[in-house]
Amino acid sequence: MGHSKKKAVVLLSGGLDSATVLGIAVRQGFSCYALTVNYGQRHRVELAAAARVAGHFQVAQHQEINLNLRQFGGSALTADIQVPTGRTQEEMQGGIPITYVPARNTVFLSLALAWAETLGAFDIFAGMNAIDYSGYPDCRPQFIEAFKTLANLATKAGVEGAGNFHIHTPLIRLSKKEIVLLGQEVGVDFSLTHSCYNPGPGKEACGECDSCKLRLAGFEQAGLADPVPYLRGPA
Amino acid sequence: MGHSKKKAVVLLSGGLDSATVLGIAVRQGFSCYALTVNYGQRHRVELAAAARVAGHFQVAQHQEINLNLRQFGGSALTADIQVPTGRTQEEMQGGIPITYVPARNTVFLSLALAWAETLGAFDIFAGMNAIDYSGYPDCRPQFIEAFKTLANLATKAGVEGAGNFHIHTPLIRLSKKEIVLLGQEVGVDFSLTHSCYNPGPGKEACGECDSCKLRLAGFEQAGLADPVPYLRGPA
Repeated sequence: MGHSKKKAVVLLSGGLDSATVLGIAVRQGFSCYALTVNYGQRHRVELAAAARVAGHFQVAQHQEINLNLRQFGGSALTADIQVPTGRTQEEMQGGIPITYVPARNTVFLSLALAWAETLGAFDIFAGMNAIDYSGYPDCRPQFIEAFKTLANLATKAGVEGAGNFHIHTPLIRLSKKEIVLLGQEVGVDFSLTHSCYNPGPGKEACGECDSCKLRLAGFEQAGLADPVPYLRGPA
Repeated sequence: MGHSKKKAVVLLSGGLDSATVLGIAVRQGFSCYALTVNYGQRHRVELAAAARVAGHFQVAQHQEINLNLRQFGGSALTADIQVPTGRTQEEMQGGIPITYVPARNTVFLSLALAWAETLGAFDIFAGMNAIDYSGYPDCRPQFIEAFKTLANLATKAGVEGAGNFHIHTPLIRLSKKEIVLLGQEVGVDFSLTHSCYNPGPGKEACGECDSCKLRLAGFEQAGLADPVPYLRGPA
């Protein structure tokens, strides 16, 4: 009898992090509305992963929305710029990576807010992480705080006093190792997820991009095997 | 030799207000990048108006981006809900109108921010108005302030100190009469614009929806004739 549960909108990319966030929201008893943005990312195989993960957690509804951020360009994920490979975690920490998509998290949270307002939901879950992606400006806690302030001014709720938006970012201070362990705890089926920026012809993860490197290190440190297929193993 | 001008992204719906904002940005010497969102609005004829207005002001670039907010519903502008007609300006002031689109301005400003960051622009122009649309939460000055704070945290600029975003809303405290007069001053060709929520079969403005009523009253108070065709005249 799920209709008395509180609703939440969960941003779901299909990766390890957002799958873990969805698992957390489900465990916390929310009726989950999963939102996936097809923004023209080069790793579109993650869209299929999002659908699999949403099915696994039996969400109330899963919507995929099209928004072609390629029109704006400016990122290795949405333009014809090569994704960097073979970088160490130290190298990844230096400055804002070329895989940063301009204002992506602002756009994604805005879309989640639009759907939440329609649903009458006041809880939005997202997988931002300030540790592994310290170079991304829109993964920082102060950005999330500013978005919460904005959400409560931007909507009917802010005028009519119907409620207060909460932006849940349960992974924001966790290491990838801790995310893997938490994902396991909340029932994520890792084999359904996809993290690679630059998948191979058979949709295998490359094992060499920043996202693969972080994921593989996280599994290794957690003492678990990553069940997704790789073209190459960890360095 | 426009390449040394400062760039600005201007949200352009094709209506009277955003056309006036574009005229203001051009007059202020910005190289203008006009952004129009095809969000599934029922009055799609405004998209053609946006292209005409962009052409009239010879913008550096005009992009139309598709984002189907109908997937979320919740508004008379994006769902099969009837647009109210024949309301007085006093009636329009009572509460949030059914034509409010959940979180629309948050989404639109986020998209403008994404493009601005790619262009290296720090100026965003938008036509929000807190007088005629006092019922819309995302037309209030405190919302714009909160978005500015967010923009400067959300982007590379906020991390690298490259600049500060400014959100220009030059109409926010003007009456429709003042907007009409300002539009005339900055060279808007009103015949190219479209404001009606519920246009007729020949794309004529209905003359009865809130948007038509406000526009007609603005022209009347300004002592000017509105050159666009109407199905019915002012009440």
